[in-house]
Amino acid sequence: MTIVMKKEESRHGPRERMVRSAGTLIRSNGVHGTGMREIVEQADAPRGSLQHYFPGGKDQLITEGVLLKGDMAARKVGRFLGRLDYPSPLGLFTAIVDDWRGILHREGYAGGCPLLAAGIDPSLAARDAARQAFDGWLDPLAQALVVTGVPEDRATPLAILLVSALEGAIVLSRVRRDTGPLDTIVAELAPLLDTGGPR
Amino acid sequence: MTIVMKKEESRHGPRERMVRSAGTLIRSNGVHGTGMREIVEQADAPRGSLQHYFPGGKDQLITEGVLLKGDMAARKVGRFLGRLDYPSPLGLFTAIVDDWRGILHREGYAGGCPLLAAGIDPSLAARDAARQAFDGWLDPLAQALVVTGVPEDRATPLAILLVSALEGAIVLSRVRRDTGPLDTIVAELAPLLDTGGPR
Repeated sequence: MTIVMKKEESRHGPRERMVRSAGTLIRSNGVHGTGMREIVEQADAPRGSLQHYFPGGKDQLITEGVLLKGDMAARKVGRFLGRLDYPSPLGLFTAIVDDWRGILHREGYAGGCPLLAAGIDPSLAARDAARQAFDGWLDPLAQALVVTGVPEDRATPLAILLVSALEGAIVLSRVRRDTGPLDTIVAELAPLLDTGGPR
Repeated sequence: MTIVMKKEESRHGPRERMVRSAGTLIRSNGVHGTGMREIVEQADAPRGSLQHYFPGGKDQLITEGVLLKGDMAARKVGRFLGRLDYPSPLGLFTAIVDDWRGILHREGYAGGCPLLAAGIDPSLAARDAARQAFDGWLDPLAQALVVTGVPEDRATPLAILLVSALEGAIVLSRVRRDTGPLDTIVAELAPLLDTGGPR
């Protein structure tokens, strides 16, 4: 089943629209299941421009799409942190999970995380893009955790745990068509996060 | 990149070999990236037998492959529990994670979890198979956690957290080609697991 997502907005140029479309389409169809033709159509871009903008072909387009999505996730961390009246690790993680709960609901569980989709693909280019994008998300998350009071040496391991649990729970929620697993990981991790960590 | 895995052993009949191959191939190539021809070849099965054994086509074969893999994961939980000298939630989770560390190392990070691969696929049949397989793994895990001392009402939520964190950390490990994220989630979750839960 192909999920038809909203076409990219025309305020972006064709190159950026194609990168955005690549990042969006792999969320529902995976890297292997996303074709160049589909990306061009969803981006409402001239087909002939593909080779011009992306001489590296699908690998380049997917890589840029995944990195853009990772960058968006990274910037969200800062926004969520800024909105907390009382910065806490639990408040920050809850905001990130709430955002995903909303995405899954709004889209009828059509799409998951583009970084995960790239990370499980057989293409080494896709997996390398996922690695870079995960790093680019984990770094600001770890820094934000420090702002909420987590000791510096614990921030990166805790960020890895939170992203791991979130990614797994997104998939469990998607297959169940129920965001219960997202609620569960927040409730279960709360004791670890309340204290800024137990060690 | 297609990962060539060991052909299925001839002690299994052709039908079972094809189911096993389906479950194995999606681990590295995803559902969309795994073709019927490839499954038949890897299973060393007669091509003409496909329609006979699997009138439901690829959906049926993938579903059976995913359920078989889920069943194998479920039976491993019981074996890991049986081997613990002193049953504890941390000992059980450590054994499950150690198993995955070994798999990733042995295969050179070629394959991930077949349940996750099915769970992110656009095919609703694959996602439904993943849902069933995850449930069939979470149930015995929750029961095993009770044996290790986790209160009954906390066992299922804790199992959901552990499977979520494991799935995410497998992907992070695979993209990094380094099992550090698996070590990290065990270390970070240890305080929650040591006590059989904090609530």
